[in-house]
Amino acid sequence: MNIKITGSGSYIPNRIVANADFAQHVFLDEKGAPLTYSNEVVADKFRQITGIDERRYVESDLVTSDIAFFAAQRAIEDANIDPETLDYIIFAHNFGNVKAGAIQGDLVPSLAARVKHSLRIKNPKCVAYDILFGCPGWLEGVIQAQSYIKSGMAKRCLVIGAETLSRVVDPHDRDSMIYSDGAGASIIEGTDDEGGILAHETASYTYDEAYLLFFGNSYNKDHDEDIRYIKMYGRKIYEFALNRVPQAMKECLETSGIDIKDVTKILIHQANEKMDEAIVNRFYKLHDMVTPERVMPMSIHKLGNSSVATIPTLYDLMLKGQLDDQVLTKGDIVLFASVGAGMNINAIVYKI
Amino acid sequence: MNIKITGSGSYIPNRIVANADFAQHVFLDEKGAPLTYSNEVVADKFRQITGIDERRYVESDLVTSDIAFFAAQRAIEDANIDPETLDYIIFAHNFGNVKAGAIQGDLVPSLAARVKHSLRIKNPKCVAYDILFGCPGWLEGVIQAQSYIKSGMAKRCLVIGAETLSRVVDPHDRDSMIYSDGAGASIIEGTDDEGGILAHETASYTYDEAYLLFFGNSYNKDHDEDIRYIKMYGRKIYEFALNRVPQAMKECLETSGIDIKDVTKILIHQANEKMDEAIVNRFYKLHDMVTPERVMPMSIHKLGNSSVATIPTLYDLMLKGQLDDQVLTKGDIVLFASVGAGMNINAIVYKI
Repeated sequence: MNIKITGSGSYIPNRIVANADFAQHVFLDEKGAPLTYSNEVVADKFRQITGIDERRYVESDLVTSDIAFFAAQRAIEDANIDPETLDYIIFAHNFGNVKAGAIQGDLVPSLAARVKHSLRIKNPKCVAYDILFGCPGWLEGVIQAQSYIKSGMAKRCLVIGAETLSRVVDPHDRDSMIYSDGAGASIIEGTDDEGGILAHETASYTYDEAYLLFFGNSYNKDHDEDIRYIKMYGRKIYEFALNRVPQAMKECLETSGIDIKDVTKILIHQANEKMDEAIVNRFYKLHDMVTPERVMPMSIHKLGNSSVATIPTLYDLMLKGQLDDQVLTKGDIVLFASVGAGMNINAIVYKI
Repeated sequence: MNIKITGSGSYIPNRIVANADFAQHVFLDEKGAPLTYSNEVVADKFRQITGIDERRYVESDLVTSDIAFFAAQRAIEDANIDPETLDYIIFAHNFGNVKAGAIQGDLVPSLAARVKHSLRIKNPKCVAYDILFGCPGWLEGVIQAQSYIKSGMAKRCLVIGAETLSRVVDPHDRDSMIYSDGAGASIIEGTDDEGGILAHETASYTYDEAYLLFFGNSYNKDHDEDIRYIKMYGRKIYEFALNRVPQAMKECLETSGIDIKDVTKILIHQANEKMDEAIVNRFYKLHDMVTPERVMPMSIHKLGNSSVATIPTLYDLMLKGQLDDQVLTKGDIVLFASVGAGMNINAIVYKI
């Protein structure tokens, strides 16, 4: 039996926020002092490093579990399955439902339970739970689904990654320009079809790295210190990712038995274009190769970094021919890879 | 290979809060009107239904991941293992770390990552993630660990249930008297020893039940409506649990092949004494039996309802001879069962 993605869906919020839309923000440094250069310079440097021109924010009446539901509906439709036959709904996110204007995340009931409710699934044997695993959460959900299928506990799972980072950004932190909202969903099944998941790899680096991405105070020291926002030590994350992700990808590929020359595409978490390029370049360098052109499709320019949602969304766009001229075809070997809060890293070698 | 709990630990907060300590609370009904009877009457009725005399709250300098760490240390010591050999740390909670006086939960990095950091584990192959599954989260974590061990993805897992409900209670809601803080942790391993997990059962009821336990506004209508607290429809939960939990326990027992007469103890989520008694009585009634005396050990009188922590704490206390004269001995058949937000239900038949 092989374990494959048999359906895919995504939801891209309608509201487009361009870099120029941050022109009036008062950006401060970590110590609370104003930046010594203009917001135009901030935006230019930001664009050069991250590749992001614009990002998407949800409308004010939506929360994370709503957009997850939209993506899930599309994945179910795409797989052409009866949702009552799902054995698991695994929902990866990081902050729960945060309403517009509110600061509290809402996690009870779990967002998976809310999606199952919205899908009007009656079958109680469909187990709905959330995982918190940083940006690699969707990929880890797929690895968990694989385990349930392998151990005979499930045949068919819905794995969702959805996040509304626009609700947890510090307006005074230029890093906030990275973050975006989105949702991706996939149906994972045991099947007799050829291909599927050939290998996986997961690692959690917490000894020195646990707090590289964290929930912290605004750079504006006048803000209530009990209100916190998504924060990161960007430079340290860059170095960490560059040291650890290519190695994890290499180990995963070795486990799969696939030759690197047979890898068609690398679908990497859309964190930051320069970092993603550096990771993929080092991955090929570890194999004494130069990175092949067009091996790393990117959606970050228009969609930003929507955490858990970037990979399933990218996959969905490609599969449906909606990402420029980057497509996925039967027989392609795809290397998925992600890195994020925890700090967690994971990878999957997958044959379409 | 059998899958067993090879080590156990718990942390019971030092701060004792008696029912009398709620004497000065201004209790309101759902509509915001003062209750028509005294707090003494509230406390008496509460005691009769829930069995709770007192509960534990953490000290103001502690958060959920701290007490989880204490319980985890004890479980590792009890199992006498090198923590570097752990393949997974699975942490079940519901609200993240909520600091004293703050209203925001902190989920980034995951609480599992924080515990791994505090345990000073270096091994990156030890995967640390959180699950949100309501009160049955710890038991579900054990079921997930079982899957990883069965599918060859792990040999040894640490499963934690920890919660500080004292940080999310509405002081104007008498239901808040139920909630408590605590942490329990267990080491789950594949082993050649006899016994272990004989069967499991999980169900998520979301069609009509998803919002029976939820995050809602204070009964005091003057409170900020963007600040929410743990809330429940107690009567509906009681009816739901009574209809569904005994049946799930019965199915689990049937799968295990164990005769009901061989069940030594039922370790049920310490939600509410009357509800737990009604569930267990109906479970025996489904087998045309009267509930055996002392089959259902209870810790709720002194420890309250600490959500995910009640079962691993109860197990730990019994195993270590710290719960009155209720003990567990080699060869005992234990039926674990839980119910909570989602609404989720699960059960495990386990041979010590």
